[in-house]
Amino acid sequence: MSQRIKIKALLQSGETGTEVTVKGWVRAFRSNRFIALNDGSTNGNLQIVVDFENTDPALLKRITFGAAVSITGKLAPSLGQGQSVEVIASEIEILGDCNPDEFPLQPKKQTLEFLRENAHLRFRTNTFGAIFRVRNTLSFAVHQFFQEKGFVYLHTPVITQSDAEGAGEAFHVTNFDLNNVPRTDTGEVDYKQDFFGKSTNLTVSGQLEGELGAMALSDIYTFGPTFRAENSNTTRHLAEFWMIEPEMAFYDIHDNANLAEELLKYVISYALDKNKEDLEFLTQRLLEEEKQKPQNERSELSLLDKLQFCLNNDFERLTYTEAIQILRDSTPNKKKKFVYPVEGWGTDLQSEHERYLVEKHFKKPVILTDYPKEIKSFYMRQNDDGKTVAAMDILFPGIGEIIGGSQREERLDKLETRMDELGIPKDELWWYLDTRRFGACPHSGFGLGFERLVLFVTGMGNIRDVIPFPRFPKNAEF
Amino acid sequence: MSQRIKIKALLQSGETGTEVTVKGWVRAFRSNRFIALNDGSTNGNLQIVVDFENTDPALLKRITFGAAVSITGKLAPSLGQGQSVEVIASEIEILGDCNPDEFPLQPKKQTLEFLRENAHLRFRTNTFGAIFRVRNTLSFAVHQFFQEKGFVYLHTPVITQSDAEGAGEAFHVTNFDLNNVPRTDTGEVDYKQDFFGKSTNLTVSGQLEGELGAMALSDIYTFGPTFRAENSNTTRHLAEFWMIEPEMAFYDIHDNANLAEELLKYVISYALDKNKEDLEFLTQRLLEEEKQKPQNERSELSLLDKLQFCLNNDFERLTYTEAIQILRDSTPNKKKKFVYPVEGWGTDLQSEHERYLVEKHFKKPVILTDYPKEIKSFYMRQNDDGKTVAAMDILFPGIGEIIGGSQREERLDKLETRMDELGIPKDELWWYLDTRRFGACPHSGFGLGFERLVLFVTGMGNIRDVIPFPRFPKNAEF
Repeated sequence: MSQRIKIKALLQSGETGTEVTVKGWVRAFRSNRFIALNDGSTNGNLQIVVDFENTDPALLKRITFGAAVSITGKLAPSLGQGQSVEVIASEIEILGDCNPDEFPLQPKKQTLEFLRENAHLRFRTNTFGAIFRVRNTLSFAVHQFFQEKGFVYLHTPVITQSDAEGAGEAFHVTNFDLNNVPRTDTGEVDYKQDFFGKSTNLTVSGQLEGELGAMALSDIYTFGPTFRAENSNTTRHLAEFWMIEPEMAFYDIHDNANLAEELLKYVISYALDKNKEDLEFLTQRLLEEEKQKPQNERSELSLLDKLQFCLNNDFERLTYTEAIQILRDSTPNKKKKFVYPVEGWGTDLQSEHERYLVEKHFKKPVILTDYPKEIKSFYMRQNDDGKTVAAMDILFPGIGEIIGGSQREERLDKLETRMDELGIPKDELWWYLDTRRFGACPHSGFGLGFERLVLFVTGMGNIRDVIPFPRFPKNAEF
Repeated sequence: MSQRIKIKALLQSGETGTEVTVKGWVRAFRSNRFIALNDGSTNGNLQIVVDFENTDPALLKRITFGAAVSITGKLAPSLGQGQSVEVIASEIEILGDCNPDEFPLQPKKQTLEFLRENAHLRFRTNTFGAIFRVRNTLSFAVHQFFQEKGFVYLHTPVITQSDAEGAGEAFHVTNFDLNNVPRTDTGEVDYKQDFFGKSTNLTVSGQLEGELGAMALSDIYTFGPTFRAENSNTTRHLAEFWMIEPEMAFYDIHDNANLAEELLKYVISYALDKNKEDLEFLTQRLLEEEKQKPQNERSELSLLDKLQFCLNNDFERLTYTEAIQILRDSTPNKKKKFVYPVEGWGTDLQSEHERYLVEKHFKKPVILTDYPKEIKSFYMRQNDDGKTVAAMDILFPGIGEIIGGSQREERLDKLETRMDELGIPKDELWWYLDTRRFGACPHSGFGLGFERLVLFVTGMGNIRDVIPFPRFPKNAEF
């Protein structure tokens, strides 16, 4: 069975005259004569020419949209548009029938909503084939980038005891029978009887554990699932998503920003190189989708242009304080076009503000640094002004924040004071504080939400369409 | 801060005469003169020569085991053993002190148990530095192997609704306040009010979802965390571990076995190439550990020899039925040396049996196929004999089963019958059955427990030592 050749390899080789066996799924069957065969290795279909006059009509009837087939035949130069070769079939075997009356997919455009409900089958469409091949490429590019730089991939734990960062948005993990949760004498939940002997949650970030690795291995990164039990039914949030979190010893905030910019450019460039056909297809898809919109809501740039735009521009770097000034003086703010008017220093930026800076003001990706400490996390390094921290957010067109990071506070006294101010339990994080007690050093890190990256690169509009089986409120199907 | 050079690069270049800045942690400081500096980039330390006569004594006192330092100086040829270059320090900065009276680690051999309790610091030892660098290399090698073959990396969900495979050993995931679990009118847990609107668990395997991807993309693999709420306090089990699960359309059981053997050889060979020093160190460590054992309990092969042995031998392939015959006729069985005597056909093999086949009988890795259907999962393809399934386990020296897989049952009627026999709810797995309804094809896959692989390659004895922060009964620390 292993002599089969994949369609991508076959189309690339361009060889003709040889006999080949191809296997895949029928995407179309025209005139009882031409099969468009897809095996997922590439967006393109292979054209199979069937000798219908000498083929059993019963067999022909089974060549339906979605059927799995094995075909042997000779490779010949193709006269069709956009394809170099086709296969003149000498042998056709139906591996698995597909009754067109029952098959939920149809050989026509179907809505993304419908395909989401049929996520087990949507891999079989051009759009989702392209999305998941691009997602694959981006995953590997992330690994390759960090490996080339000598980073160590660290698997930080998924089940954690601490909820220091969770802010109540962590899912509980338990082995209890929920019908009968054990209680202590005083009537509280008796976590001593639970599997881990304590209350445990799903991680919201691998950062704190990642820092432990960086304090010995210098440079580490995580790439794993993280969770948020946030009741957000939006096109931007998932309850389960993948994060990439590098942590680097001896990096200050500028080294951190340089690394983040280099990473984003590397992976986008890698996808443009490896998934040219998929990205051309997705660019076309987006173009057609936008035709439905009024002119003024359409993107100025096509998907491919937008990706190039990120590669070709140095990201603009400025402080939060400078950004506030720009936003305050901006036309939409003066004309009260922002839903959240920008008034004083100290408030968090909304997506509309981030997008204004990127898309209208600078017309390139933006790295904002030095945010007010009140709107950032306890572990960010305190600046000398007493008001800001060495935080860094990267803002992208269409997406807003794609990366958030900071230099970490390595000074034990300052870290402890901040934790006390914010009521973060120091005893729970004794191990984190230990890294500041013993051989501490300046260090930095950031988090990249992987699905946001895939959303950006594929040009899709809903985050539920760029992860195979999305988890969101009231949905954990498949 | 970014002009620093990492020790691995510096030792590899062998250049002398230039001025460099290195940063890392002090592993030793001898005679107020020689610092052994480690930055995690390699197992080796860099020797720094300190001009102690012209250095402030207060500074010298702060150069302690574990302190983080930045050192600038000239590279000079080293007279010391086993190192090509050393740095003649001209500038020493203490980045982070490390009080030797308080630092839990000591510059001497410490037990693995102690280091496990200090898992946040154990990265700073030679042993764990080596383990986690090897783990990193193996992770990347897995990705590289599959990418070279055009497989798509698929992120299957961690939170799942179904417990079809869990057999009651799945952790529950919930958003409920366990103090106050909502009930329906009839007194049952009201899962409709839970985050996902249903009872949800942590995944025990990504296989079933992986198959959905393979039925469109041809070849996919997962590499993600999986969970087992199994109350096993052993050196072989973790509650949270990482699995690699490829699924391939159009592969039969032999293609499957070929791919698995190729994968194992590829990743072991990759680690031998990239982590020579780490593996030499771990080989030495094991040798010393085994000196404590009586002669007859020591390994016949050193760690490096054992890894080579797996590369140099074709894995032995035989059926379960043939293996049972060999085991029944074996000396330890006849002399009643097995804890579980091998009697009839149909019982599962124990670790002692697997190791006998690998280590004593064949003296090479073994691939067993065609197990009795009663001891294997519902989704494995039923053989024509009506008794066995096209299962495949790969057995390794010291480890026993390292890979388990099968050809999958693609025939709807046979699959449904088997599910009925085993009481597996078909309605819960409607999406899985859909792949057998629409364009089904022969396909196969397997699972590789990543920590078992790391255990094998590093020669460690306890699985808790090859994952950064192990989760097991009553432990989710850090």
